[in-house]
Amino acid sequence: MSSTAGQVIRCKAAVAWEAGKPLVMEEVEVAPPQAMEVRLKILFTSLCHTDVYFWEAKGQTPLFPRIFGHEAGGIIESVGEGVTDLKPGDHVLPVFTGECKECRHCKSEESNMCDLLRINTDRGVMLNDGKSRFSIRGQPIYHFVGTSTFSEYTVVHVGCVAKINPAAPLDKVCVLSCGISTGLGATLNVAKPKKGSSVAIFGLGAVGLAAAEGARIAGASRIIGVDLNSNRFDEAKKFGVTEFVNPKDHKKPVQEVIAEMTNGGVDRSVECTGSVNAMISAFECVHDGWGVAVLVGVPNKDDSFKTHPMNVLNERTLKGTFFGNYKPRSDLPSVVEKYMNKELELEKFITHEVPFSEINKAFEYMLSGAGLRCIIRMGA
Amino acid sequence: MSSTAGQVIRCKAAVAWEAGKPLVMEEVEVAPPQAMEVRLKILFTSLCHTDVYFWEAKGQTPLFPRIFGHEAGGIIESVGEGVTDLKPGDHVLPVFTGECKECRHCKSEESNMCDLLRINTDRGVMLNDGKSRFSIRGQPIYHFVGTSTFSEYTVVHVGCVAKINPAAPLDKVCVLSCGISTGLGATLNVAKPKKGSSVAIFGLGAVGLAAAEGARIAGASRIIGVDLNSNRFDEAKKFGVTEFVNPKDHKKPVQEVIAEMTNGGVDRSVECTGSVNAMISAFECVHDGWGVAVLVGVPNKDDSFKTHPMNVLNERTLKGTFFGNYKPRSDLPSVVEKYMNKELELEKFITHEVPFSEINKAFEYMLSGAGLRCIIRMGA
Repeated sequence: MSSTAGQVIRCKAAVAWEAGKPLVMEEVEVAPPQAMEVRLKILFTSLCHTDVYFWEAKGQTPLFPRIFGHEAGGIIESVGEGVTDLKPGDHVLPVFTGECKECRHCKSEESNMCDLLRINTDRGVMLNDGKSRFSIRGQPIYHFVGTSTFSEYTVVHVGCVAKINPAAPLDKVCVLSCGISTGLGATLNVAKPKKGSSVAIFGLGAVGLAAAEGARIAGASRIIGVDLNSNRFDEAKKFGVTEFVNPKDHKKPVQEVIAEMTNGGVDRSVECTGSVNAMISAFECVHDGWGVAVLVGVPNKDDSFKTHPMNVLNERTLKGTFFGNYKPRSDLPSVVEKYMNKELELEKFITHEVPFSEINKAFEYMLSGAGLRCIIRMGA
Repeated sequence: MSSTAGQVIRCKAAVAWEAGKPLVMEEVEVAPPQAMEVRLKILFTSLCHTDVYFWEAKGQTPLFPRIFGHEAGGIIESVGEGVTDLKPGDHVLPVFTGECKECRHCKSEESNMCDLLRINTDRGVMLNDGKSRFSIRGQPIYHFVGTSTFSEYTVVHVGCVAKINPAAPLDKVCVLSCGISTGLGATLNVAKPKKGSSVAIFGLGAVGLAAAEGARIAGASRIIGVDLNSNRFDEAKKFGVTEFVNPKDHKKPVQEVIAEMTNGGVDRSVECTGSVNAMISAFECVHDGWGVAVLVGVPNKDDSFKTHPMNVLNERTLKGTFFGNYKPRSDLPSVVEKYMNKELELEKFITHEVPFSEINKAFEYMLSGAGLRCIIRMGA
């Protein structure tokens, strides 16, 4: 039992007081974990586009003050009542979605969309009592997607924590908490390209490059990267991308360009932009008879996916995935092992690193489109 | 070798001289099979909606005079050059689509959309020489989808013929040439419902009821039939349908009605109407996390399938199928065996029977919506 168990912990956290304004380093009070919760010491966190999206709060109901952050690696400090499969000292990755192991989704082999702990971006409090575990001089500070990792300590539902190999370097595997697993799993778990097949990846950001990494691991022989920014093509080569298409360079729709390059279409495609037009192109560029398109990117709320039904009838498959179809607690440990046995490369996703005190720099890198992932070192 | 091999055969055929006009019983000349073709004696044929659709010729380029018919059972009379795996006397089902066994589709485990022999409704001639094998006093009569089974003898590409168990009664298994296999395979090969699962079937015609039969064989515990005609519900019970929804009886969209009946959606759905609105409902009525919707019905050429991309992102799958994903030569023999070992019931699909001379009655039954399949006895 740690000496802090059962006590309020005072520590540093980067608090977003207002939409779009720089985070402010504050001393926060972190209450002990309640039933089915754990408190963890965050050692490394990274910045994902979703943090920036909700921090900007354009188009959603703003919820402030809030502690963002959801890609991280940490160590269990203490556990609440009823927690039996985690103990202080365990190395873990907190995850923005969960696995209760009790609901129909958790019991289904096919779904990872837990009824109890599925991502909820509107909720800023813990499930157990509908309250926050963070406060500053008595003022509650809202949680974000149940993780709030921009704090030296945070409280998370036990269902949103994956226990991993303690030998894994947390400053690397922390990126598996969200984006990298999302892209990787979309390819490995959902698109499932065969060895020697062709795969098109729409969007060459971190998620798309992780999808390409999945195609590389699966042994795809042609990996076609599609992006509106040709500057991304050089970096993409490191992730196994063999050919590039910038839709701006062509007069005809990109799905036709890809069909011509591949004698009728690619075997698999993975859409990682969230643009509905890219989704339609990703679907229509797969080969009839066996092509599978997987949607990953999150669309706008008024978007409509449209295609001629014959494109479906001709034996194409359209699938969507959430967090790469990984069940956080059951499956993430094995993704960490893929890194440990050098099957999966993570270093190439990590392009920047800053001390916690300079966390706003990570936001600047993301906003300017520089690099892929910026690791934020806590306690520094 | 039969005595007619290599000779022109004179026999009876029901010829469509004009769109929508009753077929006329004529004496036709059937030329011998050329390279990679076989000539077969048709014993039983049945009428499928596709025959009627192209006979009516509304909205397609009309091609007349033509011999329709594509669901049938027969016996090989003679074979052309290069045919090695069929011989006179073999019992066969001709099929409107084919399997060359050489192209990328035939070599793919996932596709049955043969590049060479895929259905072509516009072509009225044989591939080998671009000519018809049928004539009346020197005037060529066009083929239909490579089968033209409304004739006592017909010539078919060897790739469009499935050799079956000679013990199988051709007056029953002839219905497996098209519609019944299409619906059955959509469920068994593509939707693949698990034992105890729920399945919605849109459209309770012969194809939809065959899809329901597939769900029954797979052990689905709830089979929800959806049709605008409530008169079909009684008959559908014979095919394992357990519950019925007529969209006309509800103010809310049928996908919402089904979601309420099933705590969030069915596990699988199969769309057998061709209506684009039914396709959208069939997709949106499957459960998030694991639901799979399979489209079977052929849409109109200007239709657009529309849905909010979040319906896909929430881990639903949309698939299309053609001929139930069966490869005609490789897979149909095993479907016949399903009937032979009483796993599959065919008798309940056969509601009428007429002698060949009364083939126009079969058209009347189809047009009035009476029954499911009418068997036409040749040589009678």
